[in-house]
Amino acid sequence: MRFVDLIDKKKKGFEHSKEEIQFIIDSLMNGNAEDYQVAAWLMAVYFKGMTLDETANFTKAIIDSGETIDLSALRTENCPHIADKHSTGGVGDKITLILIPILAACGVPVAKLSGKGLGHTGGTIDKLESIPGFHTDLSIEELIDKVKNTGLAICAQTKRLTPADGKLYALRDVTATVDSVPLIASSVVSKKIASGADYVVLDVKYGSGAFIKTPEEACELAQWMVNIAEKLGKKFHAVITSMEQPLGRAVGNAIEVIESIEFLKGNMTADIKQLTYEMAALTLCELGICNSKEEAFSKIDDVINSSKALEYFTKLVESQGGNKIVIDNYRFFPQPNYAFQLKAENNGYISYIDAYKTAYACKLLGAGREKKTDSIDYSAGIYLNKIYGEYVSQGDVIATLYANDPDKAEVAMNYLKDAVVISYDQQPQRNMIFRII
Amino acid sequence: MRFVDLIDKKKKGFEHSKEEIQFIIDSLMNGNAEDYQVAAWLMAVYFKGMTLDETANFTKAIIDSGETIDLSALRTENCPHIADKHSTGGVGDKITLILIPILAACGVPVAKLSGKGLGHTGGTIDKLESIPGFHTDLSIEELIDKVKNTGLAICAQTKRLTPADGKLYALRDVTATVDSVPLIASSVVSKKIASGADYVVLDVKYGSGAFIKTPEEACELAQWMVNIAEKLGKKFHAVITSMEQPLGRAVGNAIEVIESIEFLKGNMTADIKQLTYEMAALTLCELGICNSKEEAFSKIDDVINSSKALEYFTKLVESQGGNKIVIDNYRFFPQPNYAFQLKAENNGYISYIDAYKTAYACKLLGAGREKKTDSIDYSAGIYLNKIYGEYVSQGDVIATLYANDPDKAEVAMNYLKDAVVISYDQQPQRNMIFRII
Repeated sequence: MRFVDLIDKKKKGFEHSKEEIQFIIDSLMNGNAEDYQVAAWLMAVYFKGMTLDETANFTKAIIDSGETIDLSALRTENCPHIADKHSTGGVGDKITLILIPILAACGVPVAKLSGKGLGHTGGTIDKLESIPGFHTDLSIEELIDKVKNTGLAICAQTKRLTPADGKLYALRDVTATVDSVPLIASSVVSKKIASGADYVVLDVKYGSGAFIKTPEEACELAQWMVNIAEKLGKKFHAVITSMEQPLGRAVGNAIEVIESIEFLKGNMTADIKQLTYEMAALTLCELGICNSKEEAFSKIDDVINSSKALEYFTKLVESQGGNKIVIDNYRFFPQPNYAFQLKAENNGYISYIDAYKTAYACKLLGAGREKKTDSIDYSAGIYLNKIYGEYVSQGDVIATLYANDPDKAEVAMNYLKDAVVISYDQQPQRNMIFRII
Repeated sequence: MRFVDLIDKKKKGFEHSKEEIQFIIDSLMNGNAEDYQVAAWLMAVYFKGMTLDETANFTKAIIDSGETIDLSALRTENCPHIADKHSTGGVGDKITLILIPILAACGVPVAKLSGKGLGHTGGTIDKLESIPGFHTDLSIEELIDKVKNTGLAICAQTKRLTPADGKLYALRDVTATVDSVPLIASSVVSKKIASGADYVVLDVKYGSGAFIKTPEEACELAQWMVNIAEKLGKKFHAVITSMEQPLGRAVGNAIEVIESIEFLKGNMTADIKQLTYEMAALTLCELGICNSKEEAFSKIDDVINSSKALEYFTKLVESQGGNKIVIDNYRFFPQPNYAFQLKAENNGYISYIDAYKTAYACKLLGAGREKKTDSIDYSAGIYLNKIYGEYVSQGDVIATLYANDPDKAEVAMNYLKDAVVISYDQQPQRNMIFRII
């Protein structure tokens, strides 16, 4: 087999056999293919696509390129499958922080691996590390031990999982071949399966603050991921959700952890509630812990109202070295030097807050990173005092920017101002979920 | 400007500006773009093409990536433009060997640069180097001096011309991006213009023995080359010719030189005669040396019948160190150890000799090279005792294989046997020229 012939085959729109797909990944890993050949093949895939069989074989070969995590020791009689959750990324997306203590409180062992964020705010790992002392550099043995002892744990993704995906992504990033549905789908599914999951609920986001712009495209990607997983013997659900506006009120790192704690204390915004409840219920029903969505919703209500979910969050913080005092006293989080207020110039209802512009403002404040080596300002962020549908009078505070650099905050303020739309009319209630696949 | 953005732009089918095209070639040459980025861009060009303006700018940038040859010192009052000829490659294609002494004898100064062949037989340079002593490693100054003294000279292409094309071709070869019309066209045109030509007659071949399979595709490529040249202020003609069957009777290196000498002595096959006369006439008319095709044909007849063209060939051989005795005594060419005959199994007319299969047989005999470092057996080759339209009786010799390795010759013989078709019916005369553009 010669790599150049496989490029030619894909270029002409033919389907690769399982052996050819394995050869492609092997050649990538052992250096038998040059990067320029892989790049040309990726561009051919961009134009000609891959079939479901090809993509499933590709995903399997990526999984097999590195270590895989065996979480079978965490299976229990009550919960015989290992569950996981994945979001394609959004602005103010703190659902994982809220979902994992809820699931743990419902009896689901949660061993979560998560990547560091590259974007406008940090990822789940970055957000948790804004809790003083919290660390996520666990070995797999430590992760499993902690889950056994406390019911949940989270650790930063190791590079030893799906190394082929790492190489492929690095190439795709610099060759304009990121936006290919089978390549995106195989990347996500390979990581989740290599992380030991039997069941995954995917949050596939569309809109201004997501990399996918329309619900139809989100459905297409979601269907691919669910189908690939099925081909590889795993059950995935996908919830297609709106990312036109930021989720909840907080965008940043520490500030999102605070909003998550507030949620577990019962102070919820409708959008976060809808997504969290839906994804938790899907998981609880799939694992056989609940028999219906109603039963699941009621169980989730219980673990929140009884503070059981908050207890699990506290356990998580303690178990991973964090100072649990933050849960009751938010001043122990890193504090910003400055706070600036965006005030309403008119009376009316908030009809839109653009997720992308809000995120961009947040990045300007220092809450995100562009390169893996960039550091994050945990204290920076944006709090939306008013969100979609809420009434503001002229002069009311719509948003508060937290920053350590007043010059950057001024630029960020202009972006944020531009993100907010106020209308005369009352706004209809939003449905955050476009479809479940 | 970032290279990844240019890949994305081409991927989406947009046209590059002149500055962007220049940036692409500059980045290729100065290493600012990685090979994998260039490869991805090439694959995007394969799928999305380039406009004529883009391709002309691309060609110009390739020319400017290296040295260009100034042949203006060769312009004369009678012949104020520098002419050149290029073939896209065929089996038994010795037209250049015949055309250049004819043109020189007609008063056209001929300073020819030519590449070494990568294929089933050698290129023009290899064929001439089968003449004992003949050397082609001339400097540009030597080339010009020799043309001034003898009217014609030929030298091997220097790597200092169009180095960007060399880099691009090396990448295209291993990334399945060779077969893109704007990329092929820009490669050919850039080399001809960098070599100092004002006027070029292109022989664009289609059929079994050419890389282009249909006359329509050949016309498309030819039109692109003519149009690009025009955009860059040069006049090109393209003759679209059949390469379904080998040209003439000889396929190899020394054996093709012998057939060329025979042609200049007046022993012509109809196919070579049609192409040579047509291309010579186009050139003589374009340069203003003749006023009509009829006048040109008559002038060509004259220089052949008077042996003037053969004299120029003899001058070429002498001037470049070759032993001119070969012209009268072919035994001074390298001699093969073996000759094997293919005999007719039936009576009938030769209706087809497959060019590709003949070429493949020839390569098996050692007449060509796959890698630039391979050596060529000048004495190996195939002589077609019978060609298209000629009658054979059972037992007649159809072809003779010349070889130094009898085992390889046996395999080659099987290919050659498979190449020949004999029919009951007399065959119509062939027209070798599909169109002139």
